[in-house]
Amino acid sequence: MNSTITIETLRETASRIKPYIHRTPVFCSTMVNQLCEAALYFKSENLQKVGAFKARGAVNAVFSLNDHAFSTNKKSDRYVTTHSSGNHAAALAYAARCRGIKALVVMPENAPPVKKAAVAGYGAQITYVESTQAAREMALAEIVEQTGAVFIHPYNDQQVIAGQATAAMELIEQVSGLDAVIAPVGGGGLLSGTALSVSAFQPSAQVFGAEPEGANDAFRSLQAGCIIPMIDPQTIADGLRTSLGEITFPIIQKHVKEIITVDEKSIIHAMRLIWERMKIIVEPSSAVVLAAVIKKRRHFKGKKIGLIISGGNADLDNIPWL
Amino acid sequence: MNSTITIETLRETASRIKPYIHRTPVFCSTMVNQLCEAALYFKSENLQKVGAFKARGAVNAVFSLNDHAFSTNKKSDRYVTTHSSGNHAAALAYAARCRGIKALVVMPENAPPVKKAAVAGYGAQITYVESTQAAREMALAEIVEQTGAVFIHPYNDQQVIAGQATAAMELIEQVSGLDAVIAPVGGGGLLSGTALSVSAFQPSAQVFGAEPEGANDAFRSLQAGCIIPMIDPQTIADGLRTSLGEITFPIIQKHVKEIITVDEKSIIHAMRLIWERMKIIVEPSSAVVLAAVIKKRRHFKGKKIGLIISGGNADLDNIPWL
Repeated sequence: MNSTITIETLRETASRIKPYIHRTPVFCSTMVNQLCEAALYFKSENLQKVGAFKARGAVNAVFSLNDHAFSTNKKSDRYVTTHSSGNHAAALAYAARCRGIKALVVMPENAPPVKKAAVAGYGAQITYVESTQAAREMALAEIVEQTGAVFIHPYNDQQVIAGQATAAMELIEQVSGLDAVIAPVGGGGLLSGTALSVSAFQPSAQVFGAEPEGANDAFRSLQAGCIIPMIDPQTIADGLRTSLGEITFPIIQKHVKEIITVDEKSIIHAMRLIWERMKIIVEPSSAVVLAAVIKKRRHFKGKKIGLIISGGNADLDNIPWL
Repeated sequence: MNSTITIETLRETASRIKPYIHRTPVFCSTMVNQLCEAALYFKSENLQKVGAFKARGAVNAVFSLNDHAFSTNKKSDRYVTTHSSGNHAAALAYAARCRGIKALVVMPENAPPVKKAAVAGYGAQITYVESTQAAREMALAEIVEQTGAVFIHPYNDQQVIAGQATAAMELIEQVSGLDAVIAPVGGGGLLSGTALSVSAFQPSAQVFGAEPEGANDAFRSLQAGCIIPMIDPQTIADGLRTSLGEITFPIIQKHVKEIITVDEKSIIHAMRLIWERMKIIVEPSSAVVLAAVIKKRRHFKGKKIGLIISGGNADLDNIPWL
């Protein structure tokens, strides 16, 4: 499937979501730069609404829906829905509240209490199901049938991808002359969006994906030339356990230079380094980008590198180095 | 002892230290505002050089020294010195390096390894001594005698206070119409500087100090009308265990509305709230300001409040709620 996202789409997206999202800051650390012998620019989406870049895609998807997408004219009876145990659920709940409609979210009953509370806190109605893909999909189908809710996929969606693209778009405005931009890759929404923005606004820069070795479907898919779904991912980076989708994959294939895989130890090391030196809370899924730079230090030496820090929803009761 | 710090001093200080310090960002959280029913603005000195506001005072003190302060004309033989187990040691090391002179720091041998490494990392020469006030002072006197080093006190120093004052000065530029500003109080360098800046640039705002109950010498000193030193402080907020000095006390007496004391549980709760909701790492000494707002919620309701987040050098191997 080809992407229909053009430069114009990206510009429209940025202005559509602007009232509802933060233009997040870009942080640097002299010490981290010395360690990596490069100039690193951390685009801090952990400081985004709902604590993750996901707010961008969800807001864009929800605000892109025209009135005909819904089965009713009554605003209070208009619903969007998704299944997610993570940041997309909170992001969709937030986006729906911004538009004044309702979010119906399917969550696994064993999701962390803090994530359940966050989603409920944004006013979503939650349906708890067993933690299987089948149970989730069945519950979702039922919701769609009963309420006419519009399903917003967490990443395999043109509007979601265009929304995620705005993080790199801002980064390019905030830091001129980047040689490379690195984003984590799970389902590929953030990485494909990042790739589209870089090729549109800073085409001289290379785009890299960073991925845990224990969930390396993007790496293997690019090697194979077709989507190889991830079976039984094993990584602390819970946001990166999903597999590429049929919309995200070809964009990544076309625009991404390389997927850099990193082991668990290096993810935890990088996470701690960011907490300790940059004084910001990042979740394990975000730390993969720094782990990737450290791993490929020779390649990146002397370069100006943008890193998309995807989110800050770390579990503060389970610090991985303790 | 009266302070000689005028509006002009503050303006000169800001321009003197500008090349060496960050203009730190001010963060807000919708959720924290809802919880407190007020508008809170977090001046994030945890993102300052060396991870704490202390860089401001140390840089100002070191760059205010004129050549006659030193016993030699040879730059490489010019020294500044202090005794500190905390952020001031790293700040002085950083400031000395910025000026191209040397820092000689007396540290207790049982200081946390991460703090020792930080001070050494900024190029200071460290003398380790037993962890008693007498041992520290003796080592310091010896250093001064042998090297002609200039002693920079961590807080009881006009230049240090003027430097710390620039954090609130920036905050007032960044956020208009504040009703109140709250800073933590240990030795009083930050609080007295904050008070001077607020009375100079936003005189309509009230200034509050926030202090642990287990180190409440500022509270008791204000009640008594004279300095009552802290004997055996008991608090997780390691930066606030020191007692007021003879320069900081009268400034606080004159300009600070009230010292709000908070218990250990509320400090840890506030610290976690900031990590979880604002996605920034703050040390326990910084969390006291939010704990103070939560304690005096009724008083602050509906107000626009600036909070000085003093530093981010938390011990990541000892998370207090775990």
